[in-house]
This record gives sequence, structure tokens and C-alpha cells, in this order.
Amino acid sequence: MALRAALSNKCGVSSVAVMHMQNPPVNSLSLGFLTEFCIAVEKLEMDKSCRGLIVTSSQPKVFSAGLDIMDMYGKSPEHCAEFWRAVQEMWLKLYTSNMVTIAAINGSSPAGGCLMSLTCDYRIMADNPRYSIGLNETQLGIVAPFWFKDTMINTVGHRTTEMALELGLLYSSSDALKIGLVDQLVPEDQVLATATKTMTKWLAIPDHARQITKSMMRKPTIDKLTSNRETDIQFFVNFITKDSIQKSLGMYLGMLKKRKS
Amino acid sequence: MALRAALSNKCGVSSVAVMHMQNPPVNSLSLGFLTEFCIAVEKLEMDKSCRGLIVTSSQPKVFSAGLDIMDMYGKSPEHCAEFWRAVQEMWLKLYTSNMVTIAAINGSSPAGGCLMSLTCDYRIMADNPRYSIGLNETQLGIVAPFWFKDTMINTVGHRTTEMALELGLLYSSSDALKIGLVDQLVPEDQVLATATKTMTKWLAIPDHARQITKSMMRKPTIDKLTSNRETDIQFFVNFITKDSIQKSLGMYLGMLKKRKS
Amino acid sequence: MALRAALSNKCGVSSVAVMHMQNPPVNSLSLGFLTEFCIAVEKLEMDKSCRGLIVTSSQPKVFSAGLDIMDMYGKSPEHCAEFWRAVQEMWLKLYTSNMVTIAAINGSSPAGGCLMSLTCDYRIMADNPRYSIGLNETQLGIVAPFWFKDTMINTVGHRTTEMALELGLLYSSSDALKIGLVDQLVPEDQVLATATKTMTKWLAIPDHARQITKSMMRKPTIDKLTSNRETDIQFFVNFITKDSIQKSLGMYLGMLKKRKS
Repeated sequence: MALRAALSNKCGVSSVAVMHMQNPPVNSLSLGFLTEFCIAVEKLEMDKSCRGLIVTSSQPKVFSAGLDIMDMYGKSPEHCAEFWRAVQEMWLKLYTSNMVTIAAINGSSPAGGCLMSLTCDYRIMADNPRYSIGLNETQLGIVAPFWFKDTMINTVGHRTTEMALELGLLYSSSDALKIGLVDQLVPEDQVLATATKTMTKWLAIPDHARQITKSMMRKPTIDKLTSNRETDIQFFVNFITKDSIQKSLGMYLGMLKKRKS
Repeated sequence: MALRAALSNKCGVSSVAVMHMQNPPVNSLSLGFLTEFCIAVEKLEMDKSCRGLIVTSSQPKVFSAGLDIMDMYGKSPEHCAEFWRAVQEMWLKLYTSNMVTIAAINGSSPAGGCLMSLTCDYRIMADNPRYSIGLNETQLGIVAPFWFKDTMINTVGHRTTEMALELGLLYSSSDALKIGLVDQLVPEDQVLATATKTMTKWLAIPDHARQITKSMMRKPTIDKLTSNRETDIQFFVNFITKDSIQKSLGMYLGMLKKRKS
Repeated sequence: MALRAALSNKCGVSSVAVMHMQNPPVNSLSLGFLTEFCIAVEKLEMDKSCRGLIVTSSQPKVFSAGLDIMDMYGKSPEHCAEFWRAVQEMWLKLYTSNMVTIAAINGSSPAGGCLMSLTCDYRIMADNPRYSIGLNETQLGIVAPFWFKDTMINTVGHRTTEMALELGLLYSSSDALKIGLVDQLVPEDQVLATATKTMTKWLAIPDHARQITKSMMRKPTIDKLTSNRETDIQFFVNFITKDSIQKSLGMYLGMLKKRKS
């Protein structure tokens, strides 16, 4: 099973869902996982009794390793297009959510994992110098698309984003806190409890006022993708199926395999 | 009298106006007060000898408590529309002012009071942990409109604004300094003197160069409201006259009454 | 000779150019210097073996004193137009460069010198309290144009830019670091060595991914000028040839002469 969504009653009248991502070994965001994830979020979104969503990992040491390279390496243009549409869908579902969304980042969170965190209303990370977070696409020879970039600018500003994306920087948890990439660090065993406590504070705000405010803040960024989805997919497919990019990905996969053995 | 505008000669050739807001008990921004305020600012704007405006409060402990709820509760759509136009006018007058504008924030400054401060070129606040400042609309079940939001983004950036508006956060003076919501803290009895001293520094810059620069910085934000005033008024009236919102305001007023007694 | 461009091999396959600006006494950005500078950058841009550019000064105590006032004072509208086009060209060449660009700021860097620094990917400044940097145009009675402003907003955000430009602030090197106007301070004799070391880190990223990312980050800002170059030139010429502005420049030049003697 790719993920478990546990609904737990929190304050009598309303409930908070805790999504434990479980796609061993490192919660790669594969086409299958993303599809299942989006269906689960959509169900929660339509469940009026569910007002909050906490996203966390049930895998040790990693929140999510990001997009699954196996869905972009040696695949047909059609497969790549379907995959990219699912990545867009995940971002749209989370960034437009009417629920309060909190990322309980209990492990490393590079690339797509960082993006997933950035879509949430609040980010709590385990205070562990071994865990890192960031949009490190350029290190792999690929490029974070404009909506990854926009989400990061909305969080840490233009200059920090420019340097982070050009260099593909991964930040330690304490550096991530310094630049505002995460909102709070707590000891690893308190990440989920802190997320639950924080959720209570957010749920004290009347839903309709909070939702209109959230939508107002994010609408321009969301509109840019929704009015350019097909172009963005075409751009991704053209880019990722290039021989030179496929070669880069192949070398990266080779390096990963070496590291393991 | 709702406000006193004292013109005092500062540097021989030019003068600085000090506006002491006086609408007891808490300088609520009522329709009447806003109308008087806008006329006063317009007069100063047209007086070429007046180059600077300091806005402060003559009421103890409060700069301004923000928009007067009595102008939105149980009132006709026509009244609500007239009120909202006056709020827009206050923002436009201050945010487009050719004068150097300094907020001498000698007390708490929630919601509309915070907005008024945000329109100024510089914000000096009394260093008193009991005083708070912020756009706390969502706490009341209402929503800060897009131009409140834009003014705050221009001051403290996108991420801080998103969290502040979603949660309706009120910041202590020291937290407000940390996030850049105010520029300087001084002991309460030195707020006005510091504002006057700061004004001298700003008036040392040639007016025409400073004014063109200010206009260039603020024009996109101002254009968004001026080209959407009627839509914005209609949105406000539709929202505020809803039964559910009126009920929220009623509950809030009841809570305020209880607190007093 | 206005500048020296030294090409030095760094990592076997690729080379880094170090541009030592040499327009005594203070590297004023005159029409002649800017023309020569743009030709040199364009040559490097077209040289595929050159992947990085370090800009520094061979003059003591100053990186660049900014635009040469002698090209705007007492000159014909045609000359002013030609001069402004050269300033635009310098900004466009640097801000759109496919090379990694690093400013090695080994001296003061007001106005146009600050702008030049802001176009680079990374800014290293000498840790010397006597050196200052900033867009101080309003202090001279003139105005930084919209693309100077946009470049600064992209670097330090809206609020800091608004105050800096309205007051024409010059920051000490340590204050510049605090607000993010420069990225790093090092002892003066290590500025160039640190730039070279930093360059190696940037060149470790695959060029195509870094270049696409850089272009994505800067395109909206660049498009604003490229689609408005003639209007911007006309605005500058109309402004700078005004009697009142010419008088301001004359007074400033008089003050500079007095200071020297």
C-alpha cells in the first residue's frame, strides 16, 4: 500500500487526517504513488468533517526522496506526459486545499519532497543535521519548472530562490529554518505531536475566512499553472526525452547504485 | 473633534503636519472619522509648504482600533458601500501621498489601524509589550481585502503575510520589529520626538526625486485598486451583509461588551 | 585602456575570465567605458570555452563610482540618449549572461557600480567599513529607473528597496551583508581569491540546467526593459535635460570639486 490516511477525531466536531506516506524504501513520488495520493487528498477535501491534513512519512530517515526517476528514464513520451500531469495534480491538490495542511517533515526531503512540503500551510522539520531539504534539480542536470520556482519564491523570496535553484542547494534542517524554508524545528520524536498541536491553533480560525484568505494569497501562482498545463507538460516531455538529459539521468542512477553497493 | 492637525514649522522654509487622531475611546475608523481624516490629508497635500505628515494618536494605549464595526453591523448595503469607499479613500490618500509620511504608533494598532501604519514611509512604535499590531481580520471571521494584503506583502514579504493573514496574527511590538512590520521601537515618551527627528532626515532628500521614486515603487499596487474600486466595494458589501458574517460580528461585539463590564 | 580581461584556465577544460576595470581614477561608467565593456562581455559570451566571469576593479578603494555624470551634464539630448542606451546594454549583457558572473567588490560601489554588482550571480565584498554600496540616486536629485529598482527588489525585497531608494541610502559593507545586498564579506586581500574559489563551486553545476534556471528567474524583469527600451531612453533624456536637474547635477559636481581641493 502506498499510503495510509488515518482520520482521527481531534476536537469533537471536526477531524484531522494524518497521511503517513509509505512507498518503500524512500517514498519516491512515482506515477502510481502520486495517483493514489491525489485520490486520497480529493476524498478528504470532499469530506466536510475533515478540516485539516498532516502529511508525514512512515519510512525511516526520509520524508520523500522526490519524483521517481524511473518514471522519466527510458520511458515513452506518453508515459512521461502522464507522469508530469500527476506531478502537477499533486501540487494543485495540495496548494489549493481548503484544509489546513501541515508538513511533518521527519526525514530528508529533496526535490519533489521539498515541493510537497512547500505547498503546505506550515512546515515542521525534525531537528537532525543529517536531514536535508531543497530543490536540488540542477545538481542532476534537470530544471525545476516555473511553478516549483514560484512556490519557493512565495516562501523564501526571490534572491534566496535564485541562488538555491541555480546551485541546486540542499539545506540542513537548521539552515532551512534560517532561510524560512521550514517554519519550526523540533526533536524527531516530537514532529507529529507538534504538528497536531499546531493544527489546533490553525483550526481555531473560522474556516471560511481562512480559506478565502489562503485562496487570495495563492491564486496568481495557481492560475499560472492551470492556464499553462499542456504547455508545461509538452516542455517537460521535450526536455526530459532529450538524449543528453537521458544520459545525465543514467549517470545519476549509476551513481546511486554504486552508493548502495 | 475627530482629529487635530497641527502644522509646525520645522526647517524654516517647509513645515511638517502632526495629525493627532482623537476619536475616543479607541480611534475607531468610522465613516465620519475617515471622511474628516481624508479631507484633512487632502488639504495638507495641496498645501505646497507642507512636505511631511506624522500620524499619531492622542488616545491613551491605542493608535487606532481599526475599522468601526458599527459601520458594518446591521447597516444597509448602501451604508456599507459608502463606508467601504471611505476606507479605500483613506488608503489611497495615504499610500499615494507626495508628503513624507511617518506613523508614530503610540499604542495598539490592529486591523485598519495596522493598514494605516503600513501606508506610511516609516513606522516608529512604542516599545511596550502590551501593544500589538497586525491584520487580525480572520480572527473576527472576516477577510482583509486584496489591497490590505498587497500593502502587507510590500512590507514584510509573501510568506510572512500568508501566515499572518491566515491566522489573523497580532504581533507584540518586538515581534513586529523582527518581521519588519515596524521599522523602529523607542520608549513610549519618545515616539513623537523620534518621528520628528526621522522626518528631518527624509526631508533632506530632494522632493521631486523622492516622490517619483515612491510613486514608481507603489504604482502597481495602487493601480490594482483604482481600476477595481467598484468591484471591491460590491465584493465587500455582498460579503459583510451575509447572515453568517453579521452573526459573527454580533458575537464579536457581544464578546467586546462582556470584556468591558 | 579602460579594462583588462584576463582569461585564465581554471579546471582544464573550461576557463574563467577576470575583468579588471581600469578607468582611472574611480572607474566611472562613461559612454566610452561602457561601450568597451559591452564588447568585451559579448566576446566572452560567444567564446564557448569561457563559462565564468569575475568582475573586479584595478583602481584602489573603488569598485566603480557609477555612471559618469559628465555624460549627462551639459550634453545634447542625442548624447544623453546614446549614453543611456549604453547603460541599458551593460545591464542587459550582464543580467542575461549565460556565464556564471561574480562581482569581486574591492571598493566602494555607489549607484551604477551597485547596479553592476546586482546583475551578478554572487557578490563578494571587501570587509572594510570605509567602503559603501547602494543606489543613492535620489541624494543627487535624480531617480533610479524601474529596471535598477526591479534588480534591487529581486535581491533585497520590496520594503528594503523602497526605503533605500527613497532615501538614496549607501550601506557600509557590513550593513550591505545584513540586508542581503552582498552575499559575503572577506578581508580585502582575499576578495579575488574567494571569487575564484566560489566560481569553482558554481561551475560544478551542469551549464544547461543552471542557464535555463537563471533565465527563468530573470526573464520577467528583463522583458520589462527589452519591451520598453525606447520609452525608457526618452524618459531619461526628458528628465536629465531639465533645467532643474541640470542645476542639481551642477551643484553636485561643484561639491565634488570642493571636496577634492
